[in-house]
Amino acid sequence: MFFTSDNAGPAHPAVIEALNRANTGFAPAYGSDAVMDDVRDRLREVFEAPEAAVHLVATGTAANSLALATLSQPWQTVFCAPVAHIHEDECNAPEFYSGGAKLTLVGDAPKMTPDALEQAIAAEQSRGVHGPQRGPVSITNVTERGTIYSVAEITALAGIARGYGLPVHLDGARFANALVGLGCSPAEMTWKAGVDAVSFGGTKNGLLGVEAVVFFDPSHAWEFELRRKRGAHLFSKHRYLSAQMLAYLTDDLWLDCARRANDNAARLAAGLAEVPQAGFLHEVQANMIFATLPRATHDRLFAAGAEYYLWNSTLEGAAPDAALAARLVCDWSITAEQIDHFLDIARG
Amino acid sequence: MFFTSDNAGPAHPAVIEALNRANTGFAPAYGSDAVMDDVRDRLREVFEAPEAAVHLVATGTAANSLALATLSQPWQTVFCAPVAHIHEDECNAPEFYSGGAKLTLVGDAPKMTPDALEQAIAAEQSRGVHGPQRGPVSITNVTERGTIYSVAEITALAGIARGYGLPVHLDGARFANALVGLGCSPAEMTWKAGVDAVSFGGTKNGLLGVEAVVFFDPSHAWEFELRRKRGAHLFSKHRYLSAQMLAYLTDDLWLDCARRANDNAARLAAGLAEVPQAGFLHEVQANMIFATLPRATHDRLFAAGAEYYLWNSTLEGAAPDAALAARLVCDWSITAEQIDHFLDIARG
Amino acid sequence: MFFTSDNAGPAHPAVIEALNRANTGFAPAYGSDAVMDDVRDRLREVFEAPEAAVHLVATGTAANSLALATLSQPWQTVFCAPVAHIHEDECNAPEFYSGGAKLTLVGDAPKMTPDALEQAIAAEQSRGVHGPQRGPVSITNVTERGTIYSVAEITALAGIARGYGLPVHLDGARFANALVGLGCSPAEMTWKAGVDAVSFGGTKNGLLGVEAVVFFDPSHAWEFELRRKRGAHLFSKHRYLSAQMLAYLTDDLWLDCARRANDNAARLAAGLAEVPQAGFLHEVQANMIFATLPRATHDRLFAAGAEYYLWNSTLEGAAPDAALAARLVCDWSITAEQIDHFLDIARG
Amino acid sequence: MFFTSDNAGPAHPAVIEALNRANTGFAPAYGSDAVMDDVRDRLREVFEAPEAAVHLVATGTAANSLALATLSQPWQTVFCAPVAHIHEDECNAPEFYSGGAKLTLVGDAPKMTPDALEQAIAAEQSRGVHGPQRGPVSITNVTERGTIYSVAEITALAGIARGYGLPVHLDGARFANALVGLGCSPAEMTWKAGVDAVSFGGTKNGLLGVEAVVFFDPSHAWEFELRRKRGAHLFSKHRYLSAQMLAYLTDDLWLDCARRANDNAARLAAGLAEVPQAGFLHEVQANMIFATLPRATHDRLFAAGAEYYLWNSTLEGAAPDAALAARLVCDWSITAEQIDHFLDIARG
Repeated sequence: MFFTSDNAGPAHPAVIEALNRANTGFAPAYGSDAVMDDVRDRLREVFEAPEAAVHLVATGTAANSLALATLSQPWQTVFCAPVAHIHEDECNAPEFYSGGAKLTLVGDAPKMTPDALEQAIAAEQSRGVHGPQRGPVSITNVTERGTIYSVAEITALAGIARGYGLPVHLDGARFANALVGLGCSPAEMTWKAGVDAVSFGGTKNGLLGVEAVVFFDPSHAWEFELRRKRGAHLFSKHRYLSAQMLAYLTDDLWLDCARRANDNAARLAAGLAEVPQAGFLHEVQANMIFATLPRATHDRLFAAGAEYYLWNSTLEGAAPDAALAARLVCDWSITAEQIDHFLDIARG
Repeated sequence: MFFTSDNAGPAHPAVIEALNRANTGFAPAYGSDAVMDDVRDRLREVFEAPEAAVHLVATGTAANSLALATLSQPWQTVFCAPVAHIHEDECNAPEFYSGGAKLTLVGDAPKMTPDALEQAIAAEQSRGVHGPQRGPVSITNVTERGTIYSVAEITALAGIARGYGLPVHLDGARFANALVGLGCSPAEMTWKAGVDAVSFGGTKNGLLGVEAVVFFDPSHAWEFELRRKRGAHLFSKHRYLSAQMLAYLTDDLWLDCARRANDNAARLAAGLAEVPQAGFLHEVQANMIFATLPRATHDRLFAAGAEYYLWNSTLEGAAPDAALAARLVCDWSITAEQIDHFLDIARG
Repeated sequence: MFFTSDNAGPAHPAVIEALNRANTGFAPAYGSDAVMDDVRDRLREVFEAPEAAVHLVATGTAANSLALATLSQPWQTVFCAPVAHIHEDECNAPEFYSGGAKLTLVGDAPKMTPDALEQAIAAEQSRGVHGPQRGPVSITNVTERGTIYSVAEITALAGIARGYGLPVHLDGARFANALVGLGCSPAEMTWKAGVDAVSFGGTKNGLLGVEAVVFFDPSHAWEFELRRKRGAHLFSKHRYLSAQMLAYLTDDLWLDCARRANDNAARLAAGLAEVPQAGFLHEVQANMIFATLPRATHDRLFAAGAEYYLWNSTLEGAAPDAALAARLVCDWSITAEQIDHFLDIARG
Repeated sequence: MFFTSDNAGPAHPAVIEALNRANTGFAPAYGSDAVMDDVRDRLREVFEAPEAAVHLVATGTAANSLALATLSQPWQTVFCAPVAHIHEDECNAPEFYSGGAKLTLVGDAPKMTPDALEQAIAAEQSRGVHGPQRGPVSITNVTERGTIYSVAEITALAGIARGYGLPVHLDGARFANALVGLGCSPAEMTWKAGVDAVSFGGTKNGLLGVEAVVFFDPSHAWEFELRRKRGAHLFSKHRYLSAQMLAYLTDDLWLDCARRANDNAARLAAGLAEVPQAGFLHEVQANMIFATLPRATHDRLFAAGAEYYLWNSTLEGAAPDAALAARLVCDWSITAEQIDHFLDIARG
């Protein structure tokens, strides 16, 4: 009953098998391996973007920071939601990689709205050389609260950015979960909607640790290569990244894993909805649940060994019927049995 | 017949097996996995340093850059050999991670000598606030030319550094190869000789991509943790780094692999010594060979499919008997048969 | 009738005279001039801080950025008001000098409140290594909206910072105006209230371009010297900075200029209060006025050659009686006649 | 008898007068002052470059660092002489402003030679993404050893740079002294010879503290403006920089001062040549002299109150007839009497 995060689960067996297969003989280093050629081809197909630049890194923070650094200048500000991973959970990595750019928090909701974005962009740069200059807009899909921007929402946000000549980045740490949730194509969720660069996550969805960075304008490729190397994110034995990503893209493994994770969350959410006094802080649209439960329910669950994070809450001093929020994340590997067992306990 | 680099070979099967084993169930993320506790214990034993801070990263450049950044200030200069990997092969990563520190090249040989180091350090800082300030000394063992600093040499260099109050870093991308070459203990090659921090390489010696950074003074630990996260080098599914490193340290796999690699190079060097007109640019002490061969020999080898780099040489326009240098690197996985086959062709 | 900013007026004649006097013969460079010794002594007296480290730079942004960089780490966040100059008007200089630190905007008012600060600090660092770490608190006095933090308010804010072990910076671009407004001593407004470092402004108050940075803990001195040089803010002909600052501190010129500026603003505000339909966005406590006036009043004033900035307003399309905000700043040099003339026109 | 540096002398009276004149009434801030328009026009005339971008900063280190940052990328290396001010005397400011670029030291002489430059550039970038990438070439004229690159030499160096597509920066901290020495036009020494950007020094030649940065391609202008502001080098009361620079360019004051300084050095060198046992380390071509004198001569001079730096020498333990090197710098303000008095003492 492990719901702390989708980065705590195992890699998919097919990925481990791919690593085993990749481990024979010699292979050119630093991304010149033959498997990377396949990855590149495959991702271009997936995105219907035959010219796209495709690069692999091993962490989501590297993907985001390097992509944003490539799209920005140190004197600019990146527009993002206040709960954006790049703002809250990367220990200033975007500031580091960009050489000191700022992040402007747009509105006060987990999702940026077009109005709030318009207002935030308009507000900057009234000060000429004195203020930070307008830089990229970064959208996270799935959001950090488990909700999904629709294609129309992405299109609206990207449209505003493009109206100001600003590039658009999509933090897709849970790209597949969003895609499965929306039922659209990768192209529709990205470049057709106005997105310039994507952090295409794999680590939270069945890989050991690989993310792709995709630029639809390939003129960014060489600068990204240099930034990646300078950031110490170019792997010598790159074949092991390539192998993971190729397995991920083979036979729609990435979509299958995401579907399973989303289904798991749906099953869990449906069950929680029937728990007495349970509530939800955000609509459950992908694989993350933010639910409130009575303290007594948490007590029972923790006593039974369930693992998850309380959310801006502490047990300490709370009354048995106090509603305490929890974040519950499902990955692809959790079984229906585990979920049902959890729900059994939750129902008391 | 693949001698381009020790980062082109496969991982050791025992390491892949460890990955397979690690891939079950859930594990706490970001270095809180139980296997990392074992790694920490094991490395402290290996170094006879029960208090040492131990961290894992996935690339050698990350290990070096983060270690040096932790030991330096942006207004300082790092003393290293002109052929140091940190200077020639990291695309300014040390400058990036340190926030703009400088590198001072010591002497003109692949190995720093105590005299040259003394002179270089003494020369800096005569200018007060105007010049770069003295920073860490970084020693690479095995050197980038395949030679090995003796314990006495390291002790002499570190002694000079410490005389000026400067910390000492050891780039041990090929730590095991040096150790096997010297026949000393890890402690003797490091803290007993005056070294403060080590990049303890695994990637070139049987792993997929893991290096440890070891600080003998644990007060650096938290700053390193923050720098690693800010540099996007903290893995969420950290267990896969831990598993590799634990396998590496189990049953002396790391020493076995290094011994095999060094032995392979010795066999190759011994054979090359008998090739007509062959010569050596540097003494062969570990797993790298810098040899000169007649152009005709190279032609034969390349025609037979051998892979390695010419060293500051090009075939173009060279006479058949022109001596052209080559770099030949042996990893643990090359077989005696492959080496002998190569030598057969080389001998013509 | 020039009310655009206190950085648009002339230097005080006594300061120019001091430059004239300083311009004889040779003087040691880079801050070793004898006048700087006097400046140091004088500022230590002014602050009743005999051990304080005292440095001069030529711009307020340099003073703030270098001071904050000295007090922070790149992985930290600086707490400040949303309207702080360091956030809105320095084109990411604090991010640049700190090596990529973040700024956390506290509350939504021009003045930070203890509650908002407590909340902002408490909210950070719940995320361990993942989030930005807590860094310095920066207080601007006079605020960017012309109001003044009382000694009690500074003490309360600094107390919260110190409770978390965080250093406190005071952006005193208008230090003298605040002091005169409060009627307290420099020590009371700073170290006695818990402030660690001060940007002690001179440029907006009668100098050509000099600010002092004062650290009450002198252990910061050498690092600041190195940061200043590395930032290219160490003047070779430093005597001309010293001479300005000494003139500033002689015979209370700095207090006289500030008193005049504040009195000028009070006179202007009193007159504006009688202008039909006039209003004030913020209480006038120092030398800045944020007033609303009917569009027709602005038209008359601009037609008569008055210069000042509309504040989040534009004339375009506004009705004659529409209330449009203006920022009016008084420096020491504006005369009562100029103010009265302005008021005559304003009154119509 | 003050020969320590040309930054220790006074500003020219005409410059102080200009400051006095500039100090009336209000003036738009941040470079929008009317005098700056004149400066821009005048410098464009001086350089015969009607489109050039012209900016003022207050220190030579700022001019160099900001110019090089504008012309480079953080993953590049700047080619310069080993004695370059940017390498030895700016406490890593170029590394800081460029975001971590490297400096490659070309050859081992105070002047770069075309051969050495060609070799240094050719050597870089053989390593693809791994090594630092080729960046700007920076030439100092007058060199840090008082010699002058001829127009032909600059043309040859710049030609090599341009052959590799690299921009060329000229550190002209002593631009006027070089120009007067060469007897050519500013255009001939710069853009006609292939130079892209110039640090046009004033501080060492009669100003209090102003340098111009000139880009012959004006497309760099806005980026430079942003970098200058972000570096905290944009002065609010910019008129005082403008006034200095305009005075400098009026009636050829800049050339007169430089001519006087060079003549002073020539007079001093001619006299020293007659001092028994005196020698010269470098040819005296501008306003700096590197001379060797017997220790006894130094003793006499110091006893008489002369001030200058020994050069890689110390009096301690030296025999009376030991030859000790000295650096002697003449500014515009030193009088023939002072020089002759110095020579009298030197001659014993």
